[in-house]
Amino acid sequence: MRISNVNGRLTTFVDGVTTDVAELSNGQFGPDAQSVYAQWDEFVAWGRSVGAHGGGAVDQSLLDSPAPQPRQVFGIGLNYVAHALEGPWGVPEVPAVFTKYPTCIVGARHEVRIPAPTTDWEVELVVVIGRDAHQVSAADAWSHVAGLTIGQDISERTLQRAGNVPQFGLGKSYPGFGPMGPWLVTPDEFENPDDLAISCRLNGELVQDSRTTDLVFSVSRLVEYLSAVVPLLPGDVIFTGTPSGVGAARKPPRFLQPGETLVSTIEGIGSLTTRLVAPR
Amino acid sequence: MRISNVNGRLTTFVDGVTTDVAELSNGQFGPDAQSVYAQWDEFVAWGRSVGAHGGGAVDQSLLDSPAPQPRQVFGIGLNYVAHALEGPWGVPEVPAVFTKYPTCIVGARHEVRIPAPTTDWEVELVVVIGRDAHQVSAADAWSHVAGLTIGQDISERTLQRAGNVPQFGLGKSYPGFGPMGPWLVTPDEFENPDDLAISCRLNGELVQDSRTTDLVFSVSRLVEYLSAVVPLLPGDVIFTGTPSGVGAARKPPRFLQPGETLVSTIEGIGSLTTRLVAPR
Repeated sequence: MRISNVNGRLTTFVDGVTTDVAELSNGQFGPDAQSVYAQWDEFVAWGRSVGAHGGGAVDQSLLDSPAPQPRQVFGIGLNYVAHALEGPWGVPEVPAVFTKYPTCIVGARHEVRIPAPTTDWEVELVVVIGRDAHQVSAADAWSHVAGLTIGQDISERTLQRAGNVPQFGLGKSYPGFGPMGPWLVTPDEFENPDDLAISCRLNGELVQDSRTTDLVFSVSRLVEYLSAVVPLLPGDVIFTGTPSGVGAARKPPRFLQPGETLVSTIEGIGSLTTRLVAPR
Repeated sequence: MRISNVNGRLTTFVDGVTTDVAELSNGQFGPDAQSVYAQWDEFVAWGRSVGAHGGGAVDQSLLDSPAPQPRQVFGIGLNYVAHALEGPWGVPEVPAVFTKYPTCIVGARHEVRIPAPTTDWEVELVVVIGRDAHQVSAADAWSHVAGLTIGQDISERTLQRAGNVPQFGLGKSYPGFGPMGPWLVTPDEFENPDDLAISCRLNGELVQDSRTTDLVFSVSRLVEYLSAVVPLLPGDVIFTGTPSGVGAARKPPRFLQPGETLVSTIEGIGSLTTRLVAPR
């Protein structure tokens, strides 16, 4: 099952056709896409009953984030070995957890303003929680996941690294810095949700290319680690980290420019297009 | 004007008497305390019209946080010089910004479970936003503040410092690690909201004692700095940092034990009592 957020209305695909969930369910679910996670089990059962499955065509210029207003957003730093070795920190011994403040979350239709010259890309597999998760084991973690989508953890490197006590979150939280989409795909639609090709193209050039089997801490282990401390709520979001190939690590460094386009692709989900525009 | 959250219902003081806001306003405001920040200007005008001002007696065993479900929580690390010099980092060159995940926010009535042996105290002045603040100047910052309250930025030091990429948020976000209260006081009730005595007693012993004039980055500068990046929403919360005297910096270190009691006091606000209890 796939869900998308078309112009603020929760939709799903039934026999390849985009279908408004609130209309088809007579108001039982939606139209707000965020609220569906609080009723996730019932929603999935309803989806099966109406034959919601697979994908179809959607005008991406209408798409908001499939989780537009998460209560809690978890970012994981340096979670691919090759990317961790690009920077000064090395491979993390435990997950490096920061937040992207929720006001940065946008959908595929949103252009992203570049606030400063050292703005960088980071394609990421993004997890949305579908069932309360507190002190959940890795073995049970996937049953608390609503689905997977694609995200960009856009990062302003100067602010991210500013000062002598670097905390990653603020420089990753300008408006628009958390594009998500185009849609959410439930775990059952993947042959193996732990082994997905993930890549990013900048103006057509392949700049990141990896597989999620290279995650230092897998989706299951992240849900276990985070939920040991924080109760994860339905609709909460985990940005699981980015593979190597970011702009700051290139020689010379390369940063995003107005007019450029990122296409972020994950196997079994699709592609998220993000257009960069000039600051106001 | 002061507002508190009595058993989930927004209240204020009228002539020293605790008054249910939803009842007195015929449902215009409340009973949910979080939603009032989205109508803050109208609420303040209504409060004036009904003579809401000053304080009074409330049974603190009934009090939830005056901002129980913030969308965004900002924590500021090492924001008093003497405290910054207690640790390995030194005084920050720019604000060190992390989050406390919103599920950790509780009120005065909540006991706090100690999850691990290295759990520490941090009394803090807490700001609640009352009007959208994006790219606000320091000069204009106070007009975006709903009011001030007292918070404890309870911190599990082992997790806070775990690994080679320390990010502060997760170890400060166990359930109950963000007690706030007992009530919110609007800025106009202070002679000078930038100069307040702040202290913390553990089982009656004075362990922290400072003034908010010692903040490295004042409330105004924090609102300016944060809002330059993130649009601050009504009801968002800023934990502004703690003075020196935390347990981890003592020789030998001292950490919180089940059965102990913290009393956190800020001039012009009052005292927030926090009881520590054993892990489940």
